[in-house]
Amino acid sequence: MRLYWDEYTYPEIEELLQKNPLIILPVGSVEAHGHHLPLNTDMLQPLWLSEEIARKLNAIILPPIHYGWTDSLSSFPGTISIGFDTLKNLVRDILGEVVKHGGRKILILSGHASTAHITALRLASEEILRMHKNVKIMLLSDYYIAYQYRGKLVPEDDSHAGVIETSRMMAIREDLVKENYKFERREEKRYMVIPDYGEIVPYATFSNPKGASKELGEKLNNLILQELIKIIKDNFEL
Amino acid sequence: MRLYWDEYTYPEIEELLQKNPLIILPVGSVEAHGHHLPLNTDMLQPLWLSEEIARKLNAIILPPIHYGWTDSLSSFPGTISIGFDTLKNLVRDILGEVVKHGGRKILILSGHASTAHITALRLASEEILRMHKNVKIMLLSDYYIAYQYRGKLVPEDDSHAGVIETSRMMAIREDLVKENYKFERREEKRYMVIPDYGEIVPYATFSNPKGASKELGEKLNNLILQELIKIIKDNFEL
Amino acid sequence: MRLYWDEYTYPEIEELLQKNPLIILPVGSVEAHGHHLPLNTDMLQPLWLSEEIARKLNAIILPPIHYGWTDSLSSFPGTISIGFDTLKNLVRDILGEVVKHGGRKILILSGHASTAHITALRLASEEILRMHKNVKIMLLSDYYIAYQYRGKLVPEDDSHAGVIETSRMMAIREDLVKENYKFERREEKRYMVIPDYGEIVPYATFSNPKGASKELGEKLNNLILQELIKIIKDNFEL
Amino acid sequence: MRLYWDEYTYPEIEELLQKNPLIILPVGSVEAHGHHLPLNTDMLQPLWLSEEIARKLNAIILPPIHYGWTDSLSSFPGTISIGFDTLKNLVRDILGEVVKHGGRKILILSGHASTAHITALRLASEEILRMHKNVKIMLLSDYYIAYQYRGKLVPEDDSHAGVIETSRMMAIREDLVKENYKFERREEKRYMVIPDYGEIVPYATFSNPKGASKELGEKLNNLILQELIKIIKDNFEL
Amino acid sequence: MRLYWDEYTYPEIEELLQKNPLIILPVGSVEAHGHHLPLNTDMLQPLWLSEEIARKLNAIILPPIHYGWTDSLSSFPGTISIGFDTLKNLVRDILGEVVKHGGRKILILSGHASTAHITALRLASEEILRMHKNVKIMLLSDYYIAYQYRGKLVPEDDSHAGVIETSRMMAIREDLVKENYKFERREEKRYMVIPDYGEIVPYATFSNPKGASKELGEKLNNLILQELIKIIKDNFEL
Amino acid sequence: MRLYWDEYTYPEIEELLQKNPLIILPVGSVEAHGHHLPLNTDMLQPLWLSEEIARKLNAIILPPIHYGWTDSLSSFPGTISIGFDTLKNLVRDILGEVVKHGGRKILILSGHASTAHITALRLASEEILRMHKNVKIMLLSDYYIAYQYRGKLVPEDDSHAGVIETSRMMAIREDLVKENYKFERREEKRYMVIPDYGEIVPYATFSNPKGASKELGEKLNNLILQELIKIIKDNFEL
Repeated sequence: MRLYWDEYTYPEIEELLQKNPLIILPVGSVEAHGHHLPLNTDMLQPLWLSEEIARKLNAIILPPIHYGWTDSLSSFPGTISIGFDTLKNLVRDILGEVVKHGGRKILILSGHASTAHITALRLASEEILRMHKNVKIMLLSDYYIAYQYRGKLVPEDDSHAGVIETSRMMAIREDLVKENYKFERREEKRYMVIPDYGEIVPYATFSNPKGASKELGEKLNNLILQELIKIIKDNFEL
Repeated sequence: MRLYWDEYTYPEIEELLQKNPLIILPVGSVEAHGHHLPLNTDMLQPLWLSEEIARKLNAIILPPIHYGWTDSLSSFPGTISIGFDTLKNLVRDILGEVVKHGGRKILILSGHASTAHITALRLASEEILRMHKNVKIMLLSDYYIAYQYRGKLVPEDDSHAGVIETSRMMAIREDLVKENYKFERREEKRYMVIPDYGEIVPYATFSNPKGASKELGEKLNNLILQELIKIIKDNFEL
Repeated sequence: MRLYWDEYTYPEIEELLQKNPLIILPVGSVEAHGHHLPLNTDMLQPLWLSEEIARKLNAIILPPIHYGWTDSLSSFPGTISIGFDTLKNLVRDILGEVVKHGGRKILILSGHASTAHITALRLASEEILRMHKNVKIMLLSDYYIAYQYRGKLVPEDDSHAGVIETSRMMAIREDLVKENYKFERREEKRYMVIPDYGEIVPYATFSNPKGASKELGEKLNNLILQELIKIIKDNFEL
Repeated sequence: MRLYWDEYTYPEIEELLQKNPLIILPVGSVEAHGHHLPLNTDMLQPLWLSEEIARKLNAIILPPIHYGWTDSLSSFPGTISIGFDTLKNLVRDILGEVVKHGGRKILILSGHASTAHITALRLASEEILRMHKNVKIMLLSDYYIAYQYRGKLVPEDDSHAGVIETSRMMAIREDLVKENYKFERREEKRYMVIPDYGEIVPYATFSNPKGASKELGEKLNNLILQELIKIIKDNFEL
Repeated sequence: MRLYWDEYTYPEIEELLQKNPLIILPVGSVEAHGHHLPLNTDMLQPLWLSEEIARKLNAIILPPIHYGWTDSLSSFPGTISIGFDTLKNLVRDILGEVVKHGGRKILILSGHASTAHITALRLASEEILRMHKNVKIMLLSDYYIAYQYRGKLVPEDDSHAGVIETSRMMAIREDLVKENYKFERREEKRYMVIPDYGEIVPYATFSNPKGASKELGEKLNNLILQELIKIIKDNFEL
Repeated sequence: MRLYWDEYTYPEIEELLQKNPLIILPVGSVEAHGHHLPLNTDMLQPLWLSEEIARKLNAIILPPIHYGWTDSLSSFPGTISIGFDTLKNLVRDILGEVVKHGGRKILILSGHASTAHITALRLASEEILRMHKNVKIMLLSDYYIAYQYRGKLVPEDDSHAGVIETSRMMAIREDLVKENYKFERREEKRYMVIPDYGEIVPYATFSNPKGASKELGEKLNNLILQELIKIIKDNFEL
C-alpha cells in the first residue's frame, strides 16, 4: 500500500484526487534536542502519525518538509533554521499546487510547535483559504495534543526534549535515542525576547527527560493518534 | 550506520563536522513522469546515489528537498512546482546554516535538471560562496553524467521519462514502475518560450522509454556512481 | 511633565538617552470590539499603562503604532489590518533608529495579543537583538497578565471584548463604551484555520461582557500595572 | 463630538461610512527641528488642521501615522526614519482597508514635505486608485500651501524649522517651543545627493526662525485652513 | 575618440578609472510626447548633453538606461514605464559596480523629471553613498536647468512637450520632429492623485509647443550645457 | 527608415502596432571580453542582427537593455553585472507594457548567453505568457546559432571572446577590436560552482581568438542572420 503522494504516477494521483481524500503535509525541523535525541525528532513524530492516519483514513501524505523555523536554537551545532518568509512561501507554494490539482481537505501536521514556525504555516494557509472558499485546512502541532497529558501522564512542566518527546522517540526509533542526557534550565526573565535559547538551556533540553520510557511513548503516541483521528473525522466529515 | 545529518544528536554532528566531511544535499522534484513512473522519480535517483556515496566516502546526507521548480510541467496532476525564489531562498538558508556549523565541502545533487531549477540552486550557492571563501560547493544533476551515455547505451534523444530514467527507476524501486507507458512528442518550434509543456508532450514523457530494463538501470546507476565518486574525490581532494 | 519621545527637541532627547532610560513602544490595533467597545480599544489600554509606567519609572514613550495585524477580524467594518511584513518592517525600522540613537532598554507593549501580530513584533525584535548585543527588548501584551485573573476576578473563558476588556475600557474612557452589547459565539472546529472570524463571532465579541464594571476595570488596570512594573524593574534592573 | 475613526464602534463606523464622508489620514514624522522645536512638529500641525477640518466638514480622522521617511535627518538624535518601502506599504495597507469598508473620499495630509516621503505616499495612493476607479485621493503637505506665504508674510527662503513652522507651533503647542534656537546653514553644492543633511545644517534648522510669533502662527494656521477647506470642498464636491 | 564606457576593453577602462574621471549615467524614458515628438525625447536630450560634457571634461558615459518610471503616461500607446523598484534597483546595481571598479565622481543625468522617477534615482544613490564615503553623486534632470528660462526665453507655463522640449529636439534630431502638434490641457483639481494623466492632457502634451524653433533649441541646449559644465566643475573640482 | 520603437511618436506607434509586427528586444551585457574586445561586445552583435531583421521583416526594435547578469566576470574592471531579480523584473515590466499596447509577437535577442542571464529573461517571459494567452515570445542568444559552426568554421571549443566573437566584432565595429589579445585557460574542476571566473580565465577570454578575421565575421554574421530569419518566419508565421 502506497501512502505518499509522490509514489504515484500522475494519472493515478489524478484519479485519487477525484475521491477528495484527506491530504497531509508533515512539517519537521532540523533541531537540537539535547544530548539524547536526534536532530530529526520533530520530523519523525508527525511522520509516524501521518502514516498511521493515512492507513486508517485513506489519506495521502505529501513529501515532508524537513526544515522549519527554529532561529532560537540555531546556535546549537546541526540545527538548520530556514527563514520565516522562506518557510511561509514554501508552504504557500505547495498548498497552491495541491489546491490547483483539486485538493480540498488538507492537514498540516508539524512536529515543531514554536510560535513563529506555526505562524508561518498559518499565514501561508490563510493566503490560500482567502483565494479558495471550498478548501479546508487544519493546522496543528501534535504537541498541542501531547501537552494535554502534562500533569497527568508526564510532569506539569514537560517540554522540548523532555519526557513526552523522549518517550515517543523511544517508541518510534529507539535506535536513535541515547541513554545519557544532560539537563539544565536557567532562570528566564519573563517576556524578554531571547534570540538564542542557548543562554537558558545550555544542552538544548527544556525539561528533564528522566522517567521517559518506550511504553509511555507507545501509550502517548496512541492517545495522540486516537484524539487526532477523532478531530480530523469531525472537522472534515470523514 | 547512520547516513543522514538529522539522525545524529547535536553533539554527535558537532564531532562529525570537525572531520570536515563531504555533506550532500539531495534535491528532487515532485513531477509528472509519464504514465509509467512515479512523481518522486527525480528524488529517488539522487537519494540512491547519495546513500551509495555516503557509504563509500563517509559523507553525511542532509534531509532532502523533495520539491523543485518545474513550472512547465505543473499542469499535469500531482506535479508540485515551488517558486524560483522560494527554491533559491530555501537552499541559501540551508547552506548558510550548514556553513555556520562548519561545513566546508558541499555537494548539491539534483535529480531534476531543468535549467531554471539548477539556476536557482546555483544562485543560492554563489551567494554563500561570496561570503565564505573557504567553502567549496559542487552542483550538478546526475543527468549531466547520465546523458553522456546517449547514443551509446541509450538512444541519442533520450530524455525525461525515457530509457535512462525508466531503467534506473526499475533498478531502484521496481514496484513503483508501471508496465504500460504512453508516449507522444509533438513538433516544437525552436526557441519559443513554452510555459506549459503539456502542449508538446501530452503524456509528460519526452522520449520513448521502450527498451528500458532493470539490468540497464543497474548498469547506468553504477556507471554514474563511479564517475560521480571519481569527480568528487578529485574536486574535494578526498 | 512630558512623557513622549517626540515632545522633546533633539538635544533634549540626546541628553535623556544618556541616562539609559526605559523606552516604551505602545502598539495597538484598529479592530472591531463588538457593539459596545470602540475600535481603539487595543490602543487605549497599553497607552494608559505606558503613561503610568512612564510617570513611575521615568520612561519615555515612543509615538504609538495604532495599526496592527488583525486579518481575521478585518471583515468587520472599521477594522484596519496591516500586512504581517508591513508591521514587522515598521517595528524593525523604529527599533533600529532608537538603538542607533543609544536606546538600550526597550519595552514593546501591545494591546492586541493575536499570535501572528505578536510574532511580527518578535521577529522584528530578534532581528535587532542579533545585531546589537547590548540591547534588551521586553515584549508582551498586557493581556498576557490580564488573563492571569481568568477564573478569579473574571470568567474562565473571558476573551476579546469580554469582561476584562469592557471593564478596563470603562475605567479608561467611559464615554466611549456603549451600554448595549451583542454576544454570540458559535461552535468552532478545533485547529481549523479560520481566515475570517466573522463566522464564529458574528458581533466581534469572543466572550460575554456581562458583569463588567468601572470598578473592576480600575482594579484590573492597577493589578496589571503593579505586576508589569515589578517585572520591568526585575528585567531591566531599574 | 468624536473626530477619530477609532473612537467609534464598528456598527457606528459602518453607519457613518454610508454617508460617504471625507476621511483624513494625517501623516507625521519624528524628526529633528532644531534646538527650539519638538520632534513631533510635523505631526502636530496636520493634526491641528485635521481636527479643524473634521469639525467643519464632518470628516473622520484615521489614527495618525507618526513616523515618516526622513533619512537625511536621521543622524540627529531622536529622529526616527522608517524605510521608504515600509512607509509605502503601510499607507497602501491602510488605504486598502478603508476602501474595502466603503471609504471613497480620502485626504492624506502630511506635515512632512520631503520629496521621497511624499512619493511613498503617492505610490501607495496610485496603487489603490488603479484598483478602485470610484475612489478619490487628495494628497499634500500643508507646507505646499504654507509656502505660498513666502516672500509675503515670511522670508523668501523660509523652510524647515524656520519662521512659519516655529510660529505655527507656538500657536498650537506653545509649551513645547523653546526660546533659544541655533541656526547655521552652510553652502550646499547644487544637485549633489546628500544622504546626511547634518553637513549642511548642523542644528537641523534650514532657515532662521527669528521673527516667529504666536500671532503669526495663528494667522498662518487659519490662512492654511481656509485655503485647504476651499480646495477640499471643490475637489470632493462637499 | 570614444565617449562610452563600454567601447573600451577592460584593461583600457581600468587605466582610465585610475585618473578618477567624471562618469555619466544618462537616464531616459520611453514616453509619449504629443503628436509631434518621438518617444525617445527624454533620452536624446541628456545623451546630447552627456556627449558634449564628455568631450569637454574627458568624462566617460555609461551605457544609457532608456526606460524610466512614467506610470501616469503609460496609457498612451508606446509609453513603457518600468516599476519604481525596478528602476531603483537597476540604478543601485549599476552604481554599485561602477564604485566597485573605482568610480568616485558620478553624474546621473535624467531627461525625465517626474518626481517619482527622480526619487527612485535618488534612493539608489543614497544607498550607495551610505556605504561609500569617498564617492560623490550629482543627480538632476536637465529640465531643472531648462526651467530657469521659463518666463524669459519661453512661456511661464512651459512644460512636457512644450516649447523648450520641442525646440531642443529640433536642434538635436530635426528628422524625428513632426510639424503638426495637438494640444489641450483640461483643468486639474489641485493636489488630487491622478494615476493616468490622459484625463488632463488627451494628447500627452502639457503645454503649447507653438513658437518652438531649431534656433531656440540650439540656444537652450548651449545655455543648459554651459550651466551644467559650470556646476559640474564646481561640484567635482574638475 | 526608422527601426526603433522610440523613434516614433505615440500615434505612429499605435498605428504600427495595429499591423501586429514583430517586436525585438535586444539585450546585452557590459562585460569583459579579453584585452582585444570592447565591453559592449554582447550588445553590438544582437543590435546588428536586430537592425538587419528589422529591415527585412519590418520589425520594430525596442530600446536595448545594455546591462545583463554576469556576476562571474564582474571582478574584471568595467564589467557591470546587475542582479538576477533586477534583470528579470526589468524585462517583465517592459514586456508587460509592450503587451498592454498590443504587441503580440516578441523576439528577445540576447548577445550574452550565460545560463542565469537567459533564465532571468525566460522567467520574465513565462510570467507574461501565463497572463496573456495570445502572445508569443521567442527567446535566444545569437550564440545558440553561432555555436552550430563549432568544429566546422571555427574550433570545437570556441567560446567567450574566441574566434567567432572576435571575427563578428571585426565585421561589425573593426575600430573597437584590438590586435593583441591575451589568452590563458586554466583547468577547471567539473561541476564546481565558481562565483568568479577570474580564477580560470585570467584575461576574461575563454578560448583562443587566433584565426579570427573580418571575412569570417561577415560570413558568420550572415549565416546567423539567415538562420535566424528562417526560424522567425516559421515561428511567427511571417
